[in-house]
Parts: sequence; structure tokens; C-alpha cells
Amino acid sequence: MLAVYGMKSSGNCYKVQLLLEQLHRPYRWVEVDSAAGQTRTPQYLAMNPNGKVPLLEAGPGRYLAESNAILCYLAEGSPLLPQDAWQRAQVLQWLFFEQYSHEPYIAVARFICRWLPDDHPRRAELPRLRERGVQALAVVEQQLARQPFIAGAEYSVADIALFAYTHAAADGGFDLSTFPQIQAWLQRVRTQPGFVAQQA
Amino acid sequence: MLAVYGMKSSGNCYKVQLLLEQLHRPYRWVEVDSAAGQTRTPQYLAMNPNGKVPLLEAGPGRYLAESNAILCYLAEGSPLLPQDAWQRAQVLQWLFFEQYSHEPYIAVARFICRWLPDDHPRRAELPRLRERGVQALAVVEQQLARQPFIAGAEYSVADIALFAYTHAAADGGFDLSTFPQIQAWLQRVRTQPGFVAQQA
Repeated sequence: MLAVYGMKSSGNCYKVQLLLEQLHRPYRWVEVDSAAGQTRTPQYLAMNPNGKVPLLEAGPGRYLAESNAILCYLAEGSPLLPQDAWQRAQVLQWLFFEQYSHEPYIAVARFICRWLPDDHPRRAELPRLRERGVQALAVVEQQLARQPFIAGAEYSVADIALFAYTHAAADGGFDLSTFPQIQAWLQRVRTQPGFVAQQA
Repeated sequence: MLAVYGMKSSGNCYKVQLLLEQLHRPYRWVEVDSAAGQTRTPQYLAMNPNGKVPLLEAGPGRYLAESNAILCYLAEGSPLLPQDAWQRAQVLQWLFFEQYSHEPYIAVARFICRWLPDDHPRRAELPRLRERGVQALAVVEQQLARQPFIAGAEYSVADIALFAYTHAAADGGFDLSTFPQIQAWLQRVRTQPGFVAQQA
């Protein structure tokens, strides 16, 4: 059976949970507390030298890291990862956009606001994170004005990847009220078969 | 014919150039100067709303952004992107690693050192960028101690992606002399058929 090493509070881990639920794939969830150093133990680093969650155990000794790589691997052969080369390229484009231009601002702002004390020096990063995060949201808003899902007419793993932190953007101080297309899309994602909400 | 909008000095753009040369695919290169605002014009934003290079024009009105998505799209069907699902997943894992854990430190340190004045306030970022960049290089070093190429026994687009900024890491103040596996791998990449060095 598949195993996922993850933290329920992490959007990157939630992506994997949401996809597995939507694919009706059985899996075992192993909760790992990175704040307590559990991703830096010799045992964990032997599974993932980069010391991050989520981590998929696809079989004995077969480990796959990077949330969006896990999404692609698990969705292969399903409608959530298109077979058509151009459509697939669009999905990948948005997966890389999410990890480079969206998550580093929206997820990091959420982390600072939710888990660091009010007087933590990293709060100084928030203005820049919010500026860049709003830029990313504006790109997503523009895309969703043209088509119902992020990479085209159909729901895909690109929607899962971008939903993971966009739905929780308010945690990082982002105001989604000025992004009506994003709000409507969040609702479309929530009505997909097998959808589960993030638990933390 | 394919067209690439890019900057020769950008490692992300060099990835696309290197792959196209190795695939012997004809293409037209359109040099775009992002420092002069050429990625923020209405014309450019209509092609890529995220306002970045590289951008592939795969046909009339068919644009693909994100360097590593472009690599996957162009390499499909070639040995540089494996057909085997698990091998392909490894390639994607390292492509996402590159964009999330490597490029934001090693490429950004290079940018600050090469293109910003000595008294620029962003130089204050360098100690943290170097710490994180060295962590990424250590992960790559460990991986290359186990196998000749980054995602396995064969050269793939994951090697192209990681080569792009690793070969120029010294520009950002990184010392590769303590990473012998990386040094040997850089040479292996340079001897691949069709290899071209970055021109800027």
C-alpha cells in the first residue's frame, strides 16, 4: 500500500491527500512533525535527503519527494493528468508556476502569520511576501477569467496544486474578495467528486 | 518553427537552448531584456501573463512558460524524458527540487553578485542564499555519489535543469571544490552529444 509522510497542516501535503482521496487510492498516512525536527533525523534523511514533506513511499525502498512530482506520478493514466502533449504541458507549466511564483509567497506568509510569534523578526518579510503573492493571485485570476480550471476546460492536478494554498491564503493576510474568479474557482474545486477539506 | 523568447545570460533560458541543440531541433531565438522592462510590456504579458523568460512559442498563439515545463514538453518522446513511470517521476522530482530548493538560492546569489552594484541593499540576502544554496548542493552531491546522472543511470532533462545554474555557481560566490561528485558530473554533462556552453 502507498504511504505518505506528511503534515496535515501543510498545503503541500494536503495536495497529495486530496488527490489520493479523489482517485480512491488506499494509502497510509504517517504524520511527521517537521517543527519537532522529525524531517531531519538520519532515518528520515535516508528516505528524503532534502528533508521535506510530503514524501511518497510507493513501495519498499521506493521514495518520491516533491509534492507536484508526486501528483503527476499518482495521476498518470487518470483524467487529472491529460494525455495530450500540449494539455499536459499546460498542467506542468502551472505546477511549476505554483512552486516558484505562488507557494514561496502565499504559503510562507501563512506560515509566518500562523506559527511564528507576533514579535518574530521574520514578520519583516510579510510586506514583500504579500506584494509577490498578490502578483501571483492576479495571474491566476486572469487565467481563470478565460477558462474554468487553471490549465484548461477540465479539472487537473494543477487545480489541486494551486488550491492547496490559495484556499488558505487568508491565513497569510491575503484578501481574496478582490479576486472573484478565484473565489468561484475555489467553489468549483470544492464540488469535485471525492473532494476533502484540509483538516488543519 | 519553434521560437524561444529568452535572455542568453539567464540559466533558465539556457536550459531551453541546450535541450534544443541536443535534440537538433531548429528554433528561432528572440532575445528579451527583462532588465529593460521588455517582459512587462502589454505585448509580452499577452504572451506570458507572469512576465518571465523563457517562453516557448510552439505555434501561432501557442505559448508555454516555465523553463522546466518547456524541457518536459520538448523532450517528450526522446531519451531525455523516460517513458517508465517511476523513472519519469524521478526526473520530475529533481525538476521541482531545482526550482524550489536550488534556483532560488544559487541563481539569485549569482544575479545579485553579477548584476547589482556593490552597495546594493540586496547584498544583505547573500549569507542566507549561500547557506541554502550549499544545502541544495549537498543534496545534489549525495545523489551523484550513488549514480552518474541526477535522476538515474541516464542523462535526462533533470541534468539540464540542474546544470544551468550549478555550472555558474561560482558567479554567486559558491565554491564547488568541496563537491567532487558535482565537479565530475559537470564534466559528464559537458561531454554529452550536442552540448553547447552558455554564451553569457
